Amino acid sequence: MTVTVPAGFTAAGIAAGLKSSGAPDLALIVNTGPRDAAAAVFTSNRAQANPIIWSRQAIADGRARAIVLNSGGANCFTGHEGFQTTHATAEAVAAALDLGAGEVLVCSTGLIGEQLDRPKLLAGVEAASAALSADGGADAARAIMTTDSVPKVAEHRDAAGWAIGGIAKGAGMLAPGLATMLVVVTTDADLDAATLDRALRAATRVTFDRLDSDGCMSTNDQVTLMASGASGIVPDEAAFTAALTAVCQSLAEQLQHDAEGASHDIRIRVANAATEDDAVEVGRSVARNNLFKAAVFGNDPNWGRVLAAIGTTRADFDPYAVDVAMNGVRVCAAGGPDRPRDEVDMTPRTLVVDIDLKAGAHRAEILTNDLTHDYVHENSAYSS
Amino acid sequence: MTVTVPAGFTAAGIAAGLKSSGAPDLALIVNTGPRDAAAAVFTSNRAQANPIIWSRQAIADGRARAIVLNSGGANCFTGHEGFQTTHATAEAVAAALDLGAGEVLVCSTGLIGEQLDRPKLLAGVEAASAALSADGGADAARAIMTTDSVPKVAEHRDAAGWAIGGIAKGAGMLAPGLATMLVVVTTDADLDAATLDRALRAATRVTFDRLDSDGCMSTNDQVTLMASGASGIVPDEAAFTAALTAVCQSLAEQLQHDAEGASHDIRIRVANAATEDDAVEVGRSVARNNLFKAAVFGNDPNWGRVLAAIGTTRADFDPYAVDVAMNGVRVCAAGGPDRPRDEVDMTPRTLVVDIDLKAGAHRAEILTNDLTHDYVHENSAYSS
Repeated sequence: MTVTVPAGFTAAGIAAGLKSSGAPDLALIVNTGPRDAAAAVFTSNRAQANPIIWSRQAIADGRARAIVLNSGGANCFTGHEGFQTTHATAEAVAAALDLGAGEVLVCSTGLIGEQLDRPKLLAGVEAASAALSADGGADAARAIMTTDSVPKVAEHRDAAGWAIGGIAKGAGMLAPGLATMLVVVTTDADLDAATLDRALRAATRVTFDRLDSDGCMSTNDQVTLMASGASGIVPDEAAFTAALTAVCQSLAEQLQHDAEGASHDIRIRVANAATEDDAVEVGRSVARNNLFKAAVFGNDPNWGRVLAAIGTTRADFDPYAVDVAMNGVRVCAAGGPDRPRDEVDMTPRTLVVDIDLKAGAHRAEILTNDLTHDYVHENSAYSS
Repeated sequence: MTVTVPAGFTAAGIAAGLKSSGAPDLALIVNTGPRDAAAAVFTSNRAQANPIIWSRQAIADGRARAIVLNSGGANCFTGHEGFQTTHATAEAVAAALDLGAGEVLVCSTGLIGEQLDRPKLLAGVEAASAALSADGGADAARAIMTTDSVPKVAEHRDAAGWAIGGIAKGAGMLAPGLATMLVVVTTDADLDAATLDRALRAATRVTFDRLDSDGCMSTNDQVTLMASGASGIVPDEAAFTAALTAVCQSLAEQLQHDAEGASHDIRIRVANAATEDDAVEVGRSVARNNLFKAAVFGNDPNWGRVLAAIGTTRADFDPYAVDVAMNGVRVCAAGGPDRPRDEVDMTPRTLVVDIDLKAGAHRAEILTNDLTHDYVHENSAYSS
């Protein structure tokens, strides 16, 4: 299952006691080789958590043997003591598995600004190391959950004999810079670090980077790709990148579907933009407009708020040329009213918003959610 | 009262029937002279309502005799028919008052994308013209309200013999580019249009431009300053600008206090920034962070979300040098935990957030609100 679908990986997920609920909170994923190539993308937030600072260094050589992920605390803004906790975690994994600490990546997720319980964490590493198995992927997927209601998993089994497996967590603070949330993707394809890096950046650019649930960029985001080479197969790079992109898109859509408090998954498709960057900027501007998001929660296809949002961008278009359709009904044509808004069926979970900029030939799609009472409730109560 | 405090102005506020509630929805303010100098700042949203397009042209010569404002509809994205409605409104005011239409400014506020009822509007102009009086300022303040719960008014009576009066409306979409919401400020000082323009830009830059309730920029924002010269006094420009700034700040704080659904007024003070622009960018980033705003609603002094928000800016600072205090309690020192968060009393309506960037000597203050159940409710139900 999941990250243990590809050959050459073991995993575990256990309860280390970091979460007061007693739920699983520590995942360990190990690449048993023969290769240990790896690549990662990190949050572009300048406020970076201790595990991000550690993992950036550890993966600089394009190699990683293991990744340890804890929920129950972000270990961000926890000062020197917090960094020592991250370092000690990597050292503990290394000692248990006979690796160097520099071969171990670390991820953390949870509340910012509080110290992790180091003794519990290190004891948890011991337990997870003892629990590693080739069937442990599902346990790992559960152990990284925070406010997620379900684990997020995806896989690709290629007819050529190689596979990709992935897990993800994240339900809030979904607004990427380079990456978002915690994601681990494994493969038994035999690829070097440079190829993995190219494939991962190509895949995240059009998947996780275009998921923007609440406009709030995390301090702890990391997407990691590890290759064991255990299939002995070197796939075509384009075919691998396409499969990786599909796995990442599936995980991104699962994250969107489980976003905190959301009652709608909103798919904003921007067409006929002058550039792809313009299309992304326009889509993101709508995705971050609280008035539009609240209207969707109220099943109101309020296209005026869509136009007001895109009017704040620098994209190339004429506001009085734009068409907007919702779930297939064109409610705005050339910047004015078209079909009556009550023709739009807003009851499905998914709302598709089509924005035709009439300014070029480029397109992009942004995934977001509505702004709901439950979002406000969950995020006002998170740290209590 | 209000815009009729200065000599040389009459005003009226009447019910034209644009609002289904029957509440007052049409305001008319007339400068009876002897001077007719005027200045205005407009929304920087590229999607501009028909009255904005009209008023920009009408005030280009630095002169205005009258301003007519309607609630009950924004007249935005209403196409050629909508622009004709704005034009007809100005013509009707001109005909009633024996002016040229180019001497009449128009403002509209309400739902985007629906036509105003032109016959009702023009009949309302007749009624308002007949109702003009030197005591009509308070009626005008009430007639421009939409979701506002109270009218917003401010005045300054200078010992030197001149005065300033102002009215404002706005409770949502409070996020300025050049200006925000609908504001009319009058004075009987004898000042030319160029001086009024300088004073108005200086005042709005540090008042309305720093109010950011929900990050959503309107299509209809306009702040207009009209001078009758009726006092016969030419005040010192610095003294006038200071008084105008105080009037604008009072109106901005009244708008903040009445923001839709808000339960906290948040005053974000950014100190020791490398530049004033940096201080504004940092403050605005926090003001637009939904996670922080939801935490404040829950009386949670979640400083981690403050640091995560400012980490997304390009401002010059070291995240691990920053201090954050809330209502006087320093909860974060040098990017790490300081005083326990339960020492912060979050129960008052006002929350003061002090952010010390330790990067320079500049400062700025941004006003915002929390993200509440009532905000979501009011904005999901607005158009229904």
